[in-house]
Amino acid sequence: MSLISVGTMAFDAIETPFGKTDKIVGGSAIYVAYSAANFVTPVQQISIVGYDFPTEEMEELKSRGVMLDGVEIVPNKKSFFWSGRYHMDMNGRNTLVTDLNVLEDFNPKVPEAFQNAEFLMLGNVSPHIQISIIEQMKVRPKLIAMDTMNLWMDIAMPDLERLLKMVDVLIINDSEARQLSAQFSLVKAAKEILKMGPKYLIVKKGEHGALLFHKNEVFYAPALPLEDVFDPTGAGDTFAGGFMGHIAKTKDISFENMKTAIIVGSAMASFCVEKFGPTRLKEVNKEDIEERIKEFVQLVSFEISFE
Amino acid sequence: MSLISVGTMAFDAIETPFGKTDKIVGGSAIYVAYSAANFVTPVQQISIVGYDFPTEEMEELKSRGVMLDGVEIVPNKKSFFWSGRYHMDMNGRNTLVTDLNVLEDFNPKVPEAFQNAEFLMLGNVSPHIQISIIEQMKVRPKLIAMDTMNLWMDIAMPDLERLLKMVDVLIINDSEARQLSAQFSLVKAAKEILKMGPKYLIVKKGEHGALLFHKNEVFYAPALPLEDVFDPTGAGDTFAGGFMGHIAKTKDISFENMKTAIIVGSAMASFCVEKFGPTRLKEVNKEDIEERIKEFVQLVSFEISFE
Repeated sequence: MSLISVGTMAFDAIETPFGKTDKIVGGSAIYVAYSAANFVTPVQQISIVGYDFPTEEMEELKSRGVMLDGVEIVPNKKSFFWSGRYHMDMNGRNTLVTDLNVLEDFNPKVPEAFQNAEFLMLGNVSPHIQISIIEQMKVRPKLIAMDTMNLWMDIAMPDLERLLKMVDVLIINDSEARQLSAQFSLVKAAKEILKMGPKYLIVKKGEHGALLFHKNEVFYAPALPLEDVFDPTGAGDTFAGGFMGHIAKTKDISFENMKTAIIVGSAMASFCVEKFGPTRLKEVNKEDIEERIKEFVQLVSFEISFE
Repeated sequence: MSLISVGTMAFDAIETPFGKTDKIVGGSAIYVAYSAANFVTPVQQISIVGYDFPTEEMEELKSRGVMLDGVEIVPNKKSFFWSGRYHMDMNGRNTLVTDLNVLEDFNPKVPEAFQNAEFLMLGNVSPHIQISIIEQMKVRPKLIAMDTMNLWMDIAMPDLERLLKMVDVLIINDSEARQLSAQFSLVKAAKEILKMGPKYLIVKKGEHGALLFHKNEVFYAPALPLEDVFDPTGAGDTFAGGFMGHIAKTKDISFENMKTAIIVGSAMASFCVEKFGPTRLKEVNKEDIEERIKEFVQLVSFEISFE
């Protein structure tokens, strides 16, 4: 069992109401990897970095079972850099700087060693690249999940529409679901989006949890109410990593197991936001994760009987 | 077993993105009564109306087991009137008109027949009136729940602080919880508010569900994802009515049973928003309610096992 994770490995500089960081390691594939590797190894990483990406971070990833054969290192360019500032409510943020750097050249090849991976997580890169990854797979993975963002709906909708027909699970946030479907109601948005291709739609609502839609069924996963959301950066990717990690570990792609996987993803995301960047994800162990998942079970459990 | 419900019986004129109404029956005690009477009778109503309040509505309420001994009818004044317009997202609204009319004279007396009620729901009226009701009860009810609003935090905070020490359950929305506690994080807000008196705090988050806080415990009840929220007016009062109705029916004021009561309240609220005003609440029967509660069970149920 193995999971391919495609996405960015980058530097972020983050400002939240609680403080700010200098350049720290970030990027979607970093969060997916640190999250998923708790459940499945190897995580087979496909990404691109510059000469400035820290060797220690690569070693740390390897030590956790992340294969880096698919990570291209560009010797004369810098790594992708993003800087942003979160609003007080932590749901909105302003981008301060986006330096694409190596991302301009990202044209990934799936390494031979990664062929036959059963699970594929396509992080938020251009639909063109996401399609290219799927087309390079000699055997279609058992389950393909993807993230995307508003930008691609604005500038690459034909590619995105083609891609949506090729994947099983779309993982996006509420505003993205509304833009993609041109529907305000998330129930209506889900109906439209499921017609576009994916069999499963996960709508992330931040502190309000996540919804899973499949045919006419819906599952509502809560978010753990937290005293402070210290830094939301990477929470969505951490969620995706936990979700796909659990699916890859159990090899069960039923709706029932996806519900469980969403709870696992939500638990992982609740760790992520406790410290800046992926810091907290590197600290937690199997026991912490089990404990946190049990908190989610408590959070939503109730008894009811009918006469 | 009986439940006293204190609040307004009024006229509303409502505009939503889906349409608008002329003057229709509304008011917090109307929604509480139509909701609670599905679970407990009598609902003992304490309110005030003018000469213009429809006799047929009174008869309809009576036929459902709502006792109107505590509803004062003022012969030479009009009923309370509120008019509002909802924004597209249905979470915000603008008040267009507030005609207090009879509410200016509201100085309710608890009828002798209502003494010994075991459960008391104090709808959103001034804390002064809410205190007066509690003080008129010869035997303290087993459970007292209350609603309030930002206005009273602005103009009647000393009364509100005194009142909070006299009640068991405070039911407010997220913005009210933030204002009352001066905390943005709802977890921190809950800690502050529980110090102010109530043993239980319910924070309503509209389409994002509701949170129940008690000591260090928390329960997250989802809202049912709906295709359309047609009219949110009265949803919070309908929730409170279902909550207190279930508590009064079961006479069980444990944290466990409050969790169940919140699901019942959420189910009732999900009906309320389907049509203008209390229309939908008058249509649903016991089977509809059971069916809806089962949808909530489905909505949050998942299986997880640990090795």
